Amino acid sequence: MDPDPKMRPPASRAGRPRKSEQRASARERLLEAAHQVMSERSSIDVSVQEIATRAELNVALINYYFGGKDGLLLELAVMHQSRYEAILQHLLDSPQTAEMKFRAHIRGMVRAFRRVPYLQRLHHKILRGSSEESATEVGARLVRPLGEFYRKLIEQGVADGTLRRVDPMHVYLTIVGACDMLYSGSASLRFGFDVDQVDDAISEAYAEYLAKAVLRGLAAQA
Amino acid sequence: MDPDPKMRPPASRAGRPRKSEQRASARERLLEAAHQVMSERSSIDVSVQEIATRAELNVALINYYFGGKDGLLLELAVMHQSRYEAILQHLLDSPQTAEMKFRAHIRGMVRAFRRVPYLQRLHHKILRGSSEESATEVGARLVRPLGEFYRKLIEQGVADGTLRRVDPMHVYLTIVGACDMLYSGSASLRFGFDVDQVDDAISEAYAEYLAKAVLRGLAAQA
Repeated sequence: MDPDPKMRPPASRAGRPRKSEQRASARERLLEAAHQVMSERSSIDVSVQEIATRAELNVALINYYFGGKDGLLLELAVMHQSRYEAILQHLLDSPQTAEMKFRAHIRGMVRAFRRVPYLQRLHHKILRGSSEESATEVGARLVRPLGEFYRKLIEQGVADGTLRRVDPMHVYLTIVGACDMLYSGSASLRFGFDVDQVDDAISEAYAEYLAKAVLRGLAAQA
Repeated sequence: MDPDPKMRPPASRAGRPRKSEQRASARERLLEAAHQVMSERSSIDVSVQEIATRAELNVALINYYFGGKDGLLLELAVMHQSRYEAILQHLLDSPQTAEMKFRAHIRGMVRAFRRVPYLQRLHHKILRGSSEESATEVGARLVRPLGEFYRKLIEQGVADGTLRRVDPMHVYLTIVGACDMLYSGSASLRFGFDVDQVDDAISEAYAEYLAKAVLRGLAAQA
């Protein structure tokens, strides 16, 4: 998901691609460049020119390959979660209590946001500002599976006696909101908490806290 | 904070103000128009033209009164939380356990986001994209007091035996993230949970859930 920058193919001169391998490579370089710029900035407010400059390619190629910036962002959103449903299903099917599955899921979510810190804001932008078709694709591929996952996991936890009955939407809002806030709100941390940069240690400590706090909130026994 | 639209002063023709009362009123109408448009859209991606059109005033007045869109947004952010520090201090000073204060605070936070759903994203935008001066103002007036509030409340709860010792930053991230997500993520709810619009009932049910879940997470006894 985050290839080493040194592994990227050598940059060609800005301009149109000349061979089919270069076309494939240019397409990937634009996706990777957008990912890099948005991750560094922890923001999706980047221009097509910034993306093209980072990729060392002509900005017109973004229209050529993706039909524009929105198309590129949609492809990035879907690409980053291509194995998403399978991972959730695998966890659902595993032989553990619902409580243990929730714990593993929350830790995984914090790590996923560390890899793709802008992902939630990208979803929101597509759900709100893009075509109905794009919104439906993101909704069906990324939101619905997570909602279903929480619904099934709570059912299981009520049945196996580890969880209390709660609204899956409330669980969705609190977990995704808490994960996203570590990055969408990262600029606020230096004012309130003297944290200039979210690093691995902060992410891991937060995952630990969040898993424990959420599971205490969901536990069958008060 | 959300005056009845029927209470607004009658619209004058678009153009420059002619009297000092009209100047004062035009300034307020621009602030109120920005608040309305961003609340309806649950997004801060609005243009100065949309704000001016809603206020039925000339777009040039945004520069005249606020020095531009960023100035208007900064004023709105500070205006909406002018009593913020006092409210937090009042709660800190009240004769209740830390657990009870946290519960009241969380319910108040969910209601505050219902009144000003875009506020957190506005903070982030100012903290990240505006001048160092604006960022410092928002940081000092809005982030630092909340961080201090959590720090003191946890200290009090550890002392009065109602709360366990946790990192105030983790509490800040989870509470603010969970509150913001109800609005920043509202467009996702129709896909996962068949919710088209966040209304008072949804906000109240969420406040109830969040207060209970967070307090169970923070309680001294597991």
